[in-house]
Amino acid sequence: MQRIEVGVLGATGMVGQHFIRFLQNHPWFDLTWVGASDRSAGKKFRDATTWRLDGTLPPAVADLTVQECKPGNAPRLVFSATDASVATEIEQSFASAGHVVVSNSRNHRMEPDVPLLVPEVNPGHLAVLPLQQRLRGWTGQIVTNPNCSTVVLTMALAPLKVFGISRVVSTTMQAISGAGYPGVPSMDITANVIPYIGGEEEKMEQETQKILGDFRDGAFAPLTAGVSAHCNRVPVVDGHTVTVSVTLDLQPTPADIAAALNSFRSLPQQRKLPSAPPQPVIHMSQPDRPQPRRDTNRENGMAVFTGRLRPCPVLGWKFIALGHNTIRGAAGAAVLNAELMVSEGLLD
Amino acid sequence: MQRIEVGVLGATGMVGQHFIRFLQNHPWFDLTWVGASDRSAGKKFRDATTWRLDGTLPPAVADLTVQECKPGNAPRLVFSATDASVATEIEQSFASAGHVVVSNSRNHRMEPDVPLLVPEVNPGHLAVLPLQQRLRGWTGQIVTNPNCSTVVLTMALAPLKVFGISRVVSTTMQAISGAGYPGVPSMDITANVIPYIGGEEEKMEQETQKILGDFRDGAFAPLTAGVSAHCNRVPVVDGHTVTVSVTLDLQPTPADIAAALNSFRSLPQQRKLPSAPPQPVIHMSQPDRPQPRRDTNRENGMAVFTGRLRPCPVLGWKFIALGHNTIRGAAGAAVLNAELMVSEGLLD
Amino acid sequence: MQRIEVGVLGATGMVGQHFIRFLQNHPWFDLTWVGASDRSAGKKFRDATTWRLDGTLPPAVADLTVQECKPGNAPRLVFSATDASVATEIEQSFASAGHVVVSNSRNHRMEPDVPLLVPEVNPGHLAVLPLQQRLRGWTGQIVTNPNCSTVVLTMALAPLKVFGISRVVSTTMQAISGAGYPGVPSMDITANVIPYIGGEEEKMEQETQKILGDFRDGAFAPLTAGVSAHCNRVPVVDGHTVTVSVTLDLQPTPADIAAALNSFRSLPQQRKLPSAPPQPVIHMSQPDRPQPRRDTNRENGMAVFTGRLRPCPVLGWKFIALGHNTIRGAAGAAVLNAELMVSEGLLD
Amino acid sequence: MQRIEVGVLGATGMVGQHFIRFLQNHPWFDLTWVGASDRSAGKKFRDATTWRLDGTLPPAVADLTVQECKPGNAPRLVFSATDASVATEIEQSFASAGHVVVSNSRNHRMEPDVPLLVPEVNPGHLAVLPLQQRLRGWTGQIVTNPNCSTVVLTMALAPLKVFGISRVVSTTMQAISGAGYPGVPSMDITANVIPYIGGEEEKMEQETQKILGDFRDGAFAPLTAGVSAHCNRVPVVDGHTVTVSVTLDLQPTPADIAAALNSFRSLPQQRKLPSAPPQPVIHMSQPDRPQPRRDTNRENGMAVFTGRLRPCPVLGWKFIALGHNTIRGAAGAAVLNAELMVSEGLLD
Repeated sequence: MQRIEVGVLGATGMVGQHFIRFLQNHPWFDLTWVGASDRSAGKKFRDATTWRLDGTLPPAVADLTVQECKPGNAPRLVFSATDASVATEIEQSFASAGHVVVSNSRNHRMEPDVPLLVPEVNPGHLAVLPLQQRLRGWTGQIVTNPNCSTVVLTMALAPLKVFGISRVVSTTMQAISGAGYPGVPSMDITANVIPYIGGEEEKMEQETQKILGDFRDGAFAPLTAGVSAHCNRVPVVDGHTVTVSVTLDLQPTPADIAAALNSFRSLPQQRKLPSAPPQPVIHMSQPDRPQPRRDTNRENGMAVFTGRLRPCPVLGWKFIALGHNTIRGAAGAAVLNAELMVSEGLLD
Repeated sequence: MQRIEVGVLGATGMVGQHFIRFLQNHPWFDLTWVGASDRSAGKKFRDATTWRLDGTLPPAVADLTVQECKPGNAPRLVFSATDASVATEIEQSFASAGHVVVSNSRNHRMEPDVPLLVPEVNPGHLAVLPLQQRLRGWTGQIVTNPNCSTVVLTMALAPLKVFGISRVVSTTMQAISGAGYPGVPSMDITANVIPYIGGEEEKMEQETQKILGDFRDGAFAPLTAGVSAHCNRVPVVDGHTVTVSVTLDLQPTPADIAAALNSFRSLPQQRKLPSAPPQPVIHMSQPDRPQPRRDTNRENGMAVFTGRLRPCPVLGWKFIALGHNTIRGAAGAAVLNAELMVSEGLLD
Repeated sequence: MQRIEVGVLGATGMVGQHFIRFLQNHPWFDLTWVGASDRSAGKKFRDATTWRLDGTLPPAVADLTVQECKPGNAPRLVFSATDASVATEIEQSFASAGHVVVSNSRNHRMEPDVPLLVPEVNPGHLAVLPLQQRLRGWTGQIVTNPNCSTVVLTMALAPLKVFGISRVVSTTMQAISGAGYPGVPSMDITANVIPYIGGEEEKMEQETQKILGDFRDGAFAPLTAGVSAHCNRVPVVDGHTVTVSVTLDLQPTPADIAAALNSFRSLPQQRKLPSAPPQPVIHMSQPDRPQPRRDTNRENGMAVFTGRLRPCPVLGWKFIALGHNTIRGAAGAAVLNAELMVSEGLLD
Repeated sequence: MQRIEVGVLGATGMVGQHFIRFLQNHPWFDLTWVGASDRSAGKKFRDATTWRLDGTLPPAVADLTVQECKPGNAPRLVFSATDASVATEIEQSFASAGHVVVSNSRNHRMEPDVPLLVPEVNPGHLAVLPLQQRLRGWTGQIVTNPNCSTVVLTMALAPLKVFGISRVVSTTMQAISGAGYPGVPSMDITANVIPYIGGEEEKMEQETQKILGDFRDGAFAPLTAGVSAHCNRVPVVDGHTVTVSVTLDLQPTPADIAAALNSFRSLPQQRKLPSAPPQPVIHMSQPDRPQPRRDTNRENGMAVFTGRLRPCPVLGWKFIALGHNTIRGAAGAAVLNAELMVSEGLLD
């Protein structure tokens, strides 16, 4: 297979750095193009950003020259890590110019002609793309991945759809890395909980319904189940933990549910996409797991971990779910989206 | 009013230390007696314990001689901070010998003849005491306070009983001080979440129903509403935060609910009991409050703080609650229980 | 004694908030005036700032109208919490107009005609003020307090001056509150150490020499001892911890040194200034104390704690010191400076 | 090269788990034998221990049967992770029975016939082994690695020996993982500093002198330079940070020192030992690096990072050093010791 050149829009920001790190040594993709604001354009990447992640900036990327975020010389496939304040315009200009925009930004997620994709959960939503191109008059396209908390919740719920999901109440305990850089002031979060993340609960509630719903007759039919989210920030570096109470329509046993979680496989696993975790949901049997510091980084940060399945006196079942917010919930999610699209022939 | 001598059973442990600190400069009670295991008995208190709380051991207590946990020379009113492994026998021996045992231990909480008391919420439950004495043949009595998470939840729900409570789903983010000393290993909780606290969820679910229920016709009639708890440990020093989704039978407006929370007053306030917070539930209007590190210690740690009231797509309403786990949830709770009992004439 | 009205320059910032909190219920001073940038001027204080400290904004201050930072209607005594970028001009304009400016800013600290005052350590440095007024042509004056780390070090070293100090090597472990708000990003400091604080080491080295030196013959004669500082940020909320290796010229015993630390008293104690700690340096004998979370807030945050005195194989002696960086190291330091000046008749 | 079977003494403890993790996929060594206390002997390893590290217990080790810590059926090469309370007897019994004991325990480190080995620093110290065998009458031998803080300090100082080292004052900020499990209670270290680690300062001072000294004329000649250590625990998971002030006899420039650090290579690098970091000391030029959370895990945790080289007004030079305490400072150190010994033919 021929290697595919890719670019990153908004490469100097925190999400951009996550893309750069995740794309290192990728078996299909070569990161050859980095775009950022006019202020950075023309500089060497190493001079345009301060590396905030662990370790140091990969040397190959350090030497790239930062480009303006305008279509033209960018590769056909671009990942968008642009800030929400500019993402709408930038992403549309690239899609209009024929680029495949795989975006982590929230701007287009809830649009009725844009897939909000989790490859294991709703690969069929890609079927909306011809409609998107027709409606927008684009030769390219925009595909999005969900909010970092939504990914964890939808990956954990997807295997339970076979039992019928009718109500979901969730509470998140979210890592500080989800807020970017400088992000959360240490004076706010050290030995503290912040019981509020602006816009997060709405995203988690609406995106979950879209993702777990269907695409049929040319339109998205969201899950009708009510979804409620309480979103909190806690002093954890990486990994969003979510408590879930859920009502299932059928009467599975705990063993049925655990088996459904552990045996869940989907297109990315069948096609052995390079970033796909072999087992996307790992149900742990230890009484006090999963835990963010101990489990988030396993499976290259691409699996979602569940545990503590037990009856809920109010909604039927309760359990805990955990996933890596900047990998499975952001950069890795987008890269896996792109891999699925490649495997679907959408970049041919 | 004449000062009242009090003792602390299990004084050398972490909960005992919280009692000692909370009783400092108490306007009614003089701590004159400290009981602990045989191993410590006979020593000066300063030599029998290592002070684990902030600051240093109060000098007046430091010079007390530790006694065995046996009735005899102890004051009539004793607070029990004994470990669950020995609390049943010790507390019963004191009650049998005529002592008023105000206990923070879990052992007797769910007994059908023992009040599980939150003075603002269910002061009428003290009416079971004559029955307790008759059934057990005791001249003394045992009164308990709930688990530290339960206090926060019940204080926040009590003002909403007027609207009818039919379903509650809650998730806790609990402070490390709730686990005593040495308690939670730092390797487990630093930059981490532990999604499990043994026995905590069952306590929170059952105790809440007992406390919010009635005592009538000589028996406790628990709240019939379903209560579900997800209990988690987070890296916070003091203060348990609880997310709450609740179904109310009536149709209050948000302003009705906020007013009910803020205007909630009860016997401890009417009688101006020394440890009673003037306003037991403080509903905060800021979008990101209450927060454990910033709010827990306000009002001497005796108030419960709520915030973020908003509709829940599944259960009707959702909000956040916060309280000080070792004060309002333990030592302060028991001392307020004793104050209520004194004001009821139960120590005359 | 008649109460004295005071103002705070830069009241809306983090240091300004510390002044507001520290001045609550002050027995001498009434905070009646708050100054801030033009952008805030004219607003109610509650609308001009977001309260970042524990608890909530004191109501009396909340209702003040924010003034521009210009002399005119301000009280004679003003505390300066202004940012270094504007402090020089603002403070000089007030001093020139007859105000007594008690500043926490770094701008004038090392000026040869400005006292860098720690009331217990170098009260005699106030003698430079007539010179300052003469040289500058001011009717008012500027007095400064040192950097938050310097206060801890100089308070701990001052009692040892009787033994002769010839070399000092120190390493700080500084709290996040020292960096203000938003200050240190949580992504930088959570479960981490940042081994660098811009400009801090130079301040600590130079200020220590000035403070521990003399004022004689109309000029400051700094301590000639070499002082070296390694400054680090650690994930602690309040309280700077400092390891100190020091060479003493005389040959005291450990008991001599401990006694010198514990018995150290100075003008603020003799005059019972309201913010003066009764015992300014408290030498703890426990092997693992002082500790920031457990000791910083004792004595209203105004004492410095030392411990672990032992021989240093290289420099002679080593020990640990701890102090509250935003109280003893900032707001409380300035207020105590003002109290000393009042007691000296400098505000008559 | 034929693979070498190895065992771990004290395999169920925290250090033992670090050995198990570090030995996974080792190119030379096969872990086939795990020894622990009588209480665990006979059990499957998975049933004898609770895995405390990130991720999960390697399956191949999980199925091993735990053996008593007695020579007999153990491989010739054993790593000792035994507790200090039993290490003397166990290690000597294995050495006496012909085993090569590569120990992380402190018990034999300062013995005059035992190498305290850092392969890059003092590989020549292995020359004491024939003396050890002769004096003790052993067919086997004991080799030790230093305390986790000592490794960081000695690796950073070794490249500076060419300039002559005459005085060292250091302060550590040590990670919680250095204390094992359950180790440091979270109530002690959350948002706190503990300025004391029992026995650590003495070890760091004495071991540094032994390691940086020579072995000549059949005896160890310790470095005569005075070494002083202040040891502190901080809320960091992995990675000990050390501030260092040092006096050098020659007059190198900063560039000379940086070059000495970065170009330092030794036997492990020349022989490309599998666990040897290609560049053992990495001097970082960023003003605020190295940092434990961001740098500790680089280079498989086997490099030591330095930074912030600058003049010290008292001792001449100051800088910061960082290393992974459980890898470079414990399990990895011992494995590298064993690799050096294999490469020296000591296991032939």
